[in-house]
Amino acid sequence: MIPHVTVNLAMSADGKLSTIERRQVKISGQNDFRRVDVLKAENDAIMVGIGTVLADDPSLTVKSPELKKNRLSGGRDENPVRIIVDSNARTPCNAEILHKGPGKRIIAVSESADPEKLKELGKYADLIIAGTGRVDLKLLLEELSARGIRSLMVEGGGSLIWSLFENNLVNEYYTCIGNIIIGGSSAPTPADGTGFIKEQDFIKLELADMEMIDEGVLLKWKVKK
Amino acid sequence: MIPHVTVNLAMSADGKLSTIERRQVKISGQNDFRRVDVLKAENDAIMVGIGTVLADDPSLTVKSPELKKNRLSGGRDENPVRIIVDSNARTPCNAEILHKGPGKRIIAVSESADPEKLKELGKYADLIIAGTGRVDLKLLLEELSARGIRSLMVEGGGSLIWSLFENNLVNEYYTCIGNIIIGGSSAPTPADGTGFIKEQDFIKLELADMEMIDEGVLLKWKVKK
Repeated sequence: MIPHVTVNLAMSADGKLSTIERRQVKISGQNDFRRVDVLKAENDAIMVGIGTVLADDPSLTVKSPELKKNRLSGGRDENPVRIIVDSNARTPCNAEILHKGPGKRIIAVSESADPEKLKELGKYADLIIAGTGRVDLKLLLEELSARGIRSLMVEGGGSLIWSLFENNLVNEYYTCIGNIIIGGSSAPTPADGTGFIKEQDFIKLELADMEMIDEGVLLKWKVKK
Repeated sequence: MIPHVTVNLAMSADGKLSTIERRQVKISGQNDFRRVDVLKAENDAIMVGIGTVLADDPSLTVKSPELKKNRLSGGRDENPVRIIVDSNARTPCNAEILHKGPGKRIIAVSESADPEKLKELGKYADLIIAGTGRVDLKLLLEELSARGIRSLMVEGGGSLIWSLFENNLVNEYYTCIGNIIIGGSSAPTPADGTGFIKEQDFIKLELADMEMIDEGVLLKWKVKK
């Protein structure tokens, strides 16, 4: 068993998550922020890659007081379990995600992570060791399922999302396409990494919904299995 | 005066024009091919960058017999003027674009192009020299306008499209988003090059239309000027 995985991201109309400097920029608007907050509150857990933690230092907390209250009255923590995929345990001990708001944190590392750093990080988060050299995402998802996590939202970045697609672990793929062109051949994209080479390996999607949101478009795709 | 510029492309749902090997892959379907053929037939000229010529060797001809007939009966050539932006005159003399189907061809080069190669290419196409080192796109578009070209469709690739956006020369931006994930941090995207760094420099778009096409989505954006 593995959790239901929803990838959610905002990209420019030319398919970029941010500039070549990886600086976080405004791609969507208030309606999309609210939608993402609802999605976050609906999921048991939310996951990001270490690159996103280092670049943006997000807290990944639920923002709306009502949504928090709803979670609490449903017997859940105010925030979903926050998970960092961090093969080499590079998460800074002062990262926002480890300190802001109540709720569980998990840092997933590989066997090659420094034990001293793990001892430090263990003060702030549960640790899951899965894989040698790099985090084995399938193993990790199985372990998360064993810990009661049935639904997982992934916020980025492009390397983690690529690895999830590469291992065919994604169920839904939501993209908010903003009304801007950013450009840049080295700017981060929704799926980075090595990419698929052969057409038969491409992940195939099915359009589930499309709508205007803010000044852009929201596309909801289901992954064909 | 410069021509009205419509950028048209097909990208995967993760914003890629092709694989990291730059191999042309099927992103859209038959309905989109027909739509692109109509768009091509409607425009006075169609433009690609040298990278696209070297990677895909396209002919850029109008495919539908009716559309060709319509163009002819309207007193135009069967095919729009086919233009290659090729700063260093690297177009192979046997490129499809120079040989397949009737109609004018233009190769736009910079002053640094090899005069010997230009003499060769001059047998197959008109030459426009604009800019030193790299083709000056604004100059080129002014020259195309002087030659009676009022509407120009750009098919790619990502470097040419980036340069057009960088110089704020694009009027409309059409993207067919296919139902596949390709991935790859170095795969070509709709706007490559250096990219914008500052948010105030981003090109701002306005959504003009969205519709399902084949198994994907067609977004038509207008550039806010």
